[in-house]
Amino acid sequence: MGNIEKLKSIVDKIKYPEKKYYELAQEKLDNLTKPLGSLGRLEELARQIAGITGNLKPVLDKKYIFTMAADHGVVDEGISAYPREVTSQMVYNFLNGGAGINVLSKHIGAEVVVIDMGVAVDLEKNPSLISKKIGYGTKNMAKEPAMTREEAASSIIAGIDIVEQYVKKGANIIGTGDMGIGNTTSSSAIISVAAGVDASTVTGYGTGLDDKGLANKIKVIKKAVNLNKPDPDDGLDILSKIGGFEIGGIAGLIIGAAYMKIPVVIDGFISGAGAIIAEKICPASKEYMIASHQSVEKGHRIMMEKLGLKPLFNFDMRLGEGTGAALGISLAEASVKILNEMATFSEAGVSKKK
Amino acid sequence: MGNIEKLKSIVDKIKYPEKKYYELAQEKLDNLTKPLGSLGRLEELARQIAGITGNLKPVLDKKYIFTMAADHGVVDEGISAYPREVTSQMVYNFLNGGAGINVLSKHIGAEVVVIDMGVAVDLEKNPSLISKKIGYGTKNMAKEPAMTREEAASSIIAGIDIVEQYVKKGANIIGTGDMGIGNTTSSSAIISVAAGVDASTVTGYGTGLDDKGLANKIKVIKKAVNLNKPDPDDGLDILSKIGGFEIGGIAGLIIGAAYMKIPVVIDGFISGAGAIIAEKICPASKEYMIASHQSVEKGHRIMMEKLGLKPLFNFDMRLGEGTGAALGISLAEASVKILNEMATFSEAGVSKKK
Repeated sequence: MGNIEKLKSIVDKIKYPEKKYYELAQEKLDNLTKPLGSLGRLEELARQIAGITGNLKPVLDKKYIFTMAADHGVVDEGISAYPREVTSQMVYNFLNGGAGINVLSKHIGAEVVVIDMGVAVDLEKNPSLISKKIGYGTKNMAKEPAMTREEAASSIIAGIDIVEQYVKKGANIIGTGDMGIGNTTSSSAIISVAAGVDASTVTGYGTGLDDKGLANKIKVIKKAVNLNKPDPDDGLDILSKIGGFEIGGIAGLIIGAAYMKIPVVIDGFISGAGAIIAEKICPASKEYMIASHQSVEKGHRIMMEKLGLKPLFNFDMRLGEGTGAALGISLAEASVKILNEMATFSEAGVSKKK
Repeated sequence: MGNIEKLKSIVDKIKYPEKKYYELAQEKLDNLTKPLGSLGRLEELARQIAGITGNLKPVLDKKYIFTMAADHGVVDEGISAYPREVTSQMVYNFLNGGAGINVLSKHIGAEVVVIDMGVAVDLEKNPSLISKKIGYGTKNMAKEPAMTREEAASSIIAGIDIVEQYVKKGANIIGTGDMGIGNTTSSSAIISVAAGVDASTVTGYGTGLDDKGLANKIKVIKKAVNLNKPDPDDGLDILSKIGGFEIGGIAGLIIGAAYMKIPVVIDGFISGAGAIIAEKICPASKEYMIASHQSVEKGHRIMMEKLGLKPLFNFDMRLGEGTGAALGISLAEASVKILNEMATFSEAGVSKKK
């Protein structure tokens, strides 16, 4: 069976969470020693996670951030402020523990796992690096499709496989992350197609373009979309024509989380592009997503609107790697601790509302 | 020396943080392996904390939440959805570890210290409870001043003393918290006077009033303000006439943090009232404040505007106790870890921007 069929058969098995757990969790929350609803979004999160896991006492103590790295052929069009080599250089920085995602993951007690989804060079072996290499970077989408449909499906299957493997090791919440010079270009292209809007309304400065660089980036995205004509209703078509291997991998992490019934915390703009692809292929996967932060990157707001997700916080961040997801995971963990550890009015002998 | 003079002499010694540390911290941040400014508000926080502590490698590993409890005479006017006994019942809940603040403090690795600033009953002794009792609840501000000017100063000195004591034990970041049935009424009164706005624009539903209860609460606040005529420029006058012992204690925590040069994370609405008082008495204290969350309680936005503070997140929370501060402390800690632990471009061998 090819990966396109394999993906279809997995998606067919994914179910929406059972609504009864949301209600039972709210009932439990309403008996805890606090005014009704006074923990706001922490209560929302706790309800959602009870629903996802089908458990009124969910524990989220084995936390993983999967940072997926790949290169992009479209970098040839001069769309990034940083050179292509930075993708592999940053992978080594992740493996050596020196990047933002390492610091924030350590802070929240999560492990970072780096996945080579398609970096342009061969990477040195490392126990913290998983190779799921689909190719040595995508093709230049301004000239031809970024990858084949089979490669697109394979990138998603790679993400699903990783979630399955780590859930067997005990993972109970995961976060998505990315590294790939050029990947805001691909992500902007994806949301422009998915939302049916002009590239200029969803394209931002990425890692630090100037206005001239931004104008070129928009031009390149329009060219890629006009040339490849992705079908806005077909996630696999969008991914293959204007996506990236790490974006497919992230879509796979999300679909894998839905398949395994665990919550998945979505990082910023690139992970949002992965979420858009995941939702098109598997609409039920949306119920398993927790949006962490509102990114500075221009198209992110439209992504969140398309998905109907409300990010937990806005820190004016735009680093990627999973840095927003790390902070979001800590909040998700806090929310289930509220559900599990607070005393009820009767346990604590506290009077209820008059 | 009375506490009014003692407070004045402490405030006279408090200095603004040295701006050079902000700049040096930003320089350090700009060399780390990330696009310039891409960690947004985490970078802002790291800069501020470097400035507060005068240290480019500040460590925030000894974290305390001080939850200050007191009763309010104005409860006689029927302004709360919960009975007065809940103040002392919740103190016991804190001491037994069953409240929201216990769960969230444990989650972030902070210790909760409960302070009896003026609960209406005698509380059983407990190693986690500090008594700084100024009185058995305030007087009913709708009929007379809530406390004397000397008591107001004493409540602030109590907060300063606690910070001094805990900094000696190693505390390097603190959060404020409150418990006191009736204290949203006092806090709304404080911000209405401080901002010079009508009580109706800054008074909310508290722990869960209905519309009729809200109308009464607004009427009571107006009555208290008209009767006592607090001087909007005199923090001690506002506190004594329409404040609360725990609100004075919180103002003391903030002034104490400025005195000891450590960051103080401000919880929601009640802590915001304490911050308003602190800033009036000691304008430099504002530089030491980190606003955690945007509260649901109506007057909180105006408080933050008055103080020029931008809360870190909005979770639709309105529980108090220090719950927002706890989450904020974790973010502050994350921010200094970024400053301390990330690799520079040259250390990691990562290429800089083209």
